[in-house]
Amino acid sequence: DGDSLDVMERRAYTPPRCEVFENGPTALEPQNQYRFDINKAASEQLPHLIDNRVEKVVPASGGEVEGYARPRTIGIVFSGGPAPGGHNVIAGLYDAAKKANPENRVYGFILGQDGIIEGNVCELTDERVNKYRNLGGFCMIKTGRTKIDTRTKMRLSIATCKKLGLDALVVVGGDDSNTNAAFMAEAMIDEGIQVIGVPKTIDGDIQVKDADGKSLCAISFGFHSAARSFARNIGDLCTDGSSDVKYWHFCKVMGRVASHLALEVALQTHANLTLIGEDLAEYVDHDRVEKARAEGTVDYTAYGMTLRHLSRVVCDAIVRRAAVGKNYGVVVIPEGVLEFINEVQVFIIKLNTIISEYNDVHDTDFHSDFISLDAKLEYLRRLVRGIRKTGPATIWNARDDELFSDIPEFFKAGLLMERDSHGNFQFSQVETDRVILELVKDYLGILKEKGRYKVGIEDSYFSNTLARAGLSDESYGPVLFRNYGVGHFLLVKEELISLKTLKQALVRAELLEEEDPVPAAIVKIYEKSVPKLKVQTHFYGYDGRGSDPTKFDCTYTYNLGMTAFSLIAGGSTGQMVGIRNLEKPFEEWEPIGIPVAPLMHLEERGGKMKLVLEKSVVELDSNAFRLVKAMREKWMAASTGPDPYRKPGAIRFRGELEEDKPMTLSLNSL
Amino acid sequence: DGDSLDVMERRAYTPPRCEVFENGPTALEPQNQYRFDINKAASEQLPHLIDNRVEKVVPASGGEVEGYARPRTIGIVFSGGPAPGGHNVIAGLYDAAKKANPENRVYGFILGQDGIIEGNVCELTDERVNKYRNLGGFCMIKTGRTKIDTRTKMRLSIATCKKLGLDALVVVGGDDSNTNAAFMAEAMIDEGIQVIGVPKTIDGDIQVKDADGKSLCAISFGFHSAARSFARNIGDLCTDGSSDVKYWHFCKVMGRVASHLALEVALQTHANLTLIGEDLAEYVDHDRVEKARAEGTVDYTAYGMTLRHLSRVVCDAIVRRAAVGKNYGVVVIPEGVLEFINEVQVFIIKLNTIISEYNDVHDTDFHSDFISLDAKLEYLRRLVRGIRKTGPATIWNARDDELFSDIPEFFKAGLLMERDSHGNFQFSQVETDRVILELVKDYLGILKEKGRYKVGIEDSYFSNTLARAGLSDESYGPVLFRNYGVGHFLLVKEELISLKTLKQALVRAELLEEEDPVPAAIVKIYEKSVPKLKVQTHFYGYDGRGSDPTKFDCTYTYNLGMTAFSLIAGGSTGQMVGIRNLEKPFEEWEPIGIPVAPLMHLEERGGKMKLVLEKSVVELDSNAFRLVKAMREKWMAASTGPDPYRKPGAIRFRGELEEDKPMTLSLNSL
Repeated sequence: DGDSLDVMERRAYTPPRCEVFENGPTALEPQNQYRFDINKAASEQLPHLIDNRVEKVVPASGGEVEGYARPRTIGIVFSGGPAPGGHNVIAGLYDAAKKANPENRVYGFILGQDGIIEGNVCELTDERVNKYRNLGGFCMIKTGRTKIDTRTKMRLSIATCKKLGLDALVVVGGDDSNTNAAFMAEAMIDEGIQVIGVPKTIDGDIQVKDADGKSLCAISFGFHSAARSFARNIGDLCTDGSSDVKYWHFCKVMGRVASHLALEVALQTHANLTLIGEDLAEYVDHDRVEKARAEGTVDYTAYGMTLRHLSRVVCDAIVRRAAVGKNYGVVVIPEGVLEFINEVQVFIIKLNTIISEYNDVHDTDFHSDFISLDAKLEYLRRLVRGIRKTGPATIWNARDDELFSDIPEFFKAGLLMERDSHGNFQFSQVETDRVILELVKDYLGILKEKGRYKVGIEDSYFSNTLARAGLSDESYGPVLFRNYGVGHFLLVKEELISLKTLKQALVRAELLEEEDPVPAAIVKIYEKSVPKLKVQTHFYGYDGRGSDPTKFDCTYTYNLGMTAFSLIAGGSTGQMVGIRNLEKPFEEWEPIGIPVAPLMHLEERGGKMKLVLEKSVVELDSNAFRLVKAMREKWMAASTGPDPYRKPGAIRFRGELEEDKPMTLSLNSL
Repeated sequence: DGDSLDVMERRAYTPPRCEVFENGPTALEPQNQYRFDINKAASEQLPHLIDNRVEKVVPASGGEVEGYARPRTIGIVFSGGPAPGGHNVIAGLYDAAKKANPENRVYGFILGQDGIIEGNVCELTDERVNKYRNLGGFCMIKTGRTKIDTRTKMRLSIATCKKLGLDALVVVGGDDSNTNAAFMAEAMIDEGIQVIGVPKTIDGDIQVKDADGKSLCAISFGFHSAARSFARNIGDLCTDGSSDVKYWHFCKVMGRVASHLALEVALQTHANLTLIGEDLAEYVDHDRVEKARAEGTVDYTAYGMTLRHLSRVVCDAIVRRAAVGKNYGVVVIPEGVLEFINEVQVFIIKLNTIISEYNDVHDTDFHSDFISLDAKLEYLRRLVRGIRKTGPATIWNARDDELFSDIPEFFKAGLLMERDSHGNFQFSQVETDRVILELVKDYLGILKEKGRYKVGIEDSYFSNTLARAGLSDESYGPVLFRNYGVGHFLLVKEELISLKTLKQALVRAELLEEEDPVPAAIVKIYEKSVPKLKVQTHFYGYDGRGSDPTKFDCTYTYNLGMTAFSLIAGGSTGQMVGIRNLEKPFEEWEPIGIPVAPLMHLEERGGKMKLVLEKSVVELDSNAFRLVKAMREKWMAASTGPDPYRKPGAIRFRGELEEDKPMTLSLNSL
């Protein structure tokens, strides 16, 4: 049906298997060198799983061989957004199961956990599995977002599993799905059904360590492929931008809770500016801290970056590049960046409090009483003015009012809109890049008026242009520029903010009579110095999620699938599969089972305390972040000479591979 | 500096050369079999070029060899947006020049034609050229948008060329740049400077034929690479969409004047719906035509698609896929689609006329008199109501008013905004995808209210769900569905548009007592049948423009560069380079020179008649379009079974190539 050669080659390819899978049956060996801080709630709610240990897949010996080969029926399900490599988890599981015993059966549940609850299932065959080997997406059995989190759903799920005669269920999903899988494992222990999780997220925020910091899962599958997909597009924008030299490209990339994808894209492309949410959150305004200290107080607002300051960071890059004639560039913005802005979090908390206190005091609904944005804003202003001396007035002060007034209208409206059913602010409704872009435009407007945002004029261009017009560059230079004779790129003086002020300056310098027009060559130079900001916004996300896996992800996921079978054959339940030493050469990869229950801790989710796995954010002392930080000036390239962009190139599936893993992974293991 | 292997391999690669370039010096052979309809204005304005003929590059013989090898100095410049392959035009020109005579020099003008006017130039060296071989973008010498269209600019350009001692200038650009290059050729004839054009555009709308339809340039360079880049991303969205099954992806792709890129993407990806502007423009509402004929009149509004009808085409795909449970899909929209909507063009003409007549009559400015959108709309309504019986009232009628009221507010505002300095409507200011999305949402809302937009429920899912709840599917089926017992996907009856109407129906059918609640299983089925439209919009353009060239574009452009040198060495001027038989195997490629002046005709541009090259739009009787049209139903896939998406895969630079040219090119040459 017109399949491309690329697809046919991918289907025909078999990734290498870790040595332990090459040599027949496997067994499991508990690893006692890993330690976990056990949470009490986890211990109470998952009593059969809390003592699980890390298990290493090893060659089977003696009596283990028979158990490995006994016939089994296994189900597998996808949960949550697609990640490249998912199909290879199925292929690895399927191949291992069929190799262990050709009678083994593997079922795929359709459309996620709903397929388990409703018994929507299909048996996997060679034909079906072979069609999707090494190909992206979760299309083979599709995915869904249902969790099995009620007694009814659990009962129905168990009924389905029993009807199919399942020995084990494999859940491929994110942190919440793996938590859910552990609860299913606990609930199904009496039925003799094992449940194994496979950690998946393109965001890269599942990174598991034991209590001593020993790495168990260095990166989740799909991250590398998605990052490479985004990097290809953003690298192409760098190429286009530095050819056409007139656009700033604002590229939002997926990654809500952590900025790992943005960090990897920065390393892959050397974009001019990459915002890392975790970095912004740690920002400290030292001037403000010092000032407070001098006054004998503490200024808590000095900690964490404000929106205003964030816009200045972006503007700084734009203004500094313009000064060397580069009125273009590429900014990478993680989708979740606003969640790292302390000020935004404070606004959300304060506004939540104000709204709920208003509702309590008035026994009515804030959103019904103040329908328009103006009405809501006026209420807030009244709080500041102290018209209401009691109640919530104290938490909304003049500084809040000032900072709030900086925010674009639509984001103000967003912050003041109705909360979701749990009273939480819905970050996903906010157009992050638009918020930042509006702030940047506002501030650039101010800088332009102040004469501090100018396009630098190359000195040779200036002298040539004036020479052609028969004018003396030495006469005009000192009048026009603040750095004439010094800089390679000449900057028009700050006070020259219009042709009128320019003319006045020329008249004052006796280079022009009041009644004469400004010479055309001078007008040309001046107009070239006035920047026009043209921005194109982009969002790379769904396309990367659906991209075909890199060879790293192909190999990683195929072996994860095999590991899942080994855990099942070894009698495990409530474990996640993992591969240790991912950062090392393939020969050193070590398939393991990771205990889920001991990793859990309590977090507030939707207004309730829940047992969850901790998300891993970008560590500011990691090598990868430190490198990106160290390269910031170089990659911003606010200097003469070419931009040091890096072209990551196409995802290479054949031939020599330039890199066999994510750059962040390699760097962080140095 | 961290270059990727992909980049290093590209740099090291030398594309194959057409046979004539392998065998030493070349000469030119006039081809008299091509015929052109000469425009009188072209003949007057380009007297030295109007008799140019097609020239074929052939092996040199005798005295030609010496002329070929004599030392030359050549300049090259990029004009307009980047297109993948541009660097190889330079490499081909450079390699041919250096091979012909190592003393030959090639200069690159920086930042487009401004580089010529201002003498901003650099000499090209091995080091500089080798850095960019087979790589995308125009970064080596950058590009610009200036045209040399005044006497002053021409004088300065000639001065630059003479100062450098140029024998010839090569202009790589779009149709306008090639026209401009011909005028430069005419102006520089007395100076002995030859000017050669290289046709470039990713849009694919430069396709040159002689008066008899013989193809001279079947496709411009860059088209293939950009289309493949878009297709990769959109193919990945198809994969993601059919995994996560909850989004409609609206993908806008570049291409303002013609829909070639969208057509190629359709062939590459089999997206569910691809709008082709040229097709919409040809639409005829046969019902309306018949009705008018019966009344003895002619209804000119029946010709060309309306916005309302366009939204119905998109909604039809959404509704029909929902009916088989597919509440997701991918739509490809060419950037310029609105320009093909007859109704929009009519609005623009009518509103232009109304505004300018108002200004004439009142000796004032429409936009100053009616500042708000409401005020402008009220004026239009007054015209309809005939309050003003004279003047422009006659051209704005009730049907205009009705159609106009359908349009989203922001597009109404756009249509009524101030024109550019030539009085033209600025299409580039309109967010095409947003206009279509708003119309689609409006109409889907209507269809939902009428009960005609429902998600189909698989019959087995229905019977299983009811069985689990202990309910009889045979009792409930006929009450709930309009096609119970017939369809594989069951459609809830149109009149059941809420849980309330559902309950009433159950009570009427005596399946429920008035005081009892609707059973949970029935509620679940009903809620599953209610569609939630979630749309993600995407724009693929700049990234594709900056992508690395396909092998086809690498080879094509390298040989175009060589052809440019052969034309120069053969003494040509005012010609564009081209390669005939691009659609055939490489061995049959035939490097030629194409005369520009004989191709010119007059068109209105910016309020004036100008000599231009005709843009080539999608031909509705071409094989490529006919295939896409024939596959429409299949690719829409409003049927059970999987979506027949095609994954185009990564751009293959190494190994076997799945296709060595654009699909549209191959199909149209069959």
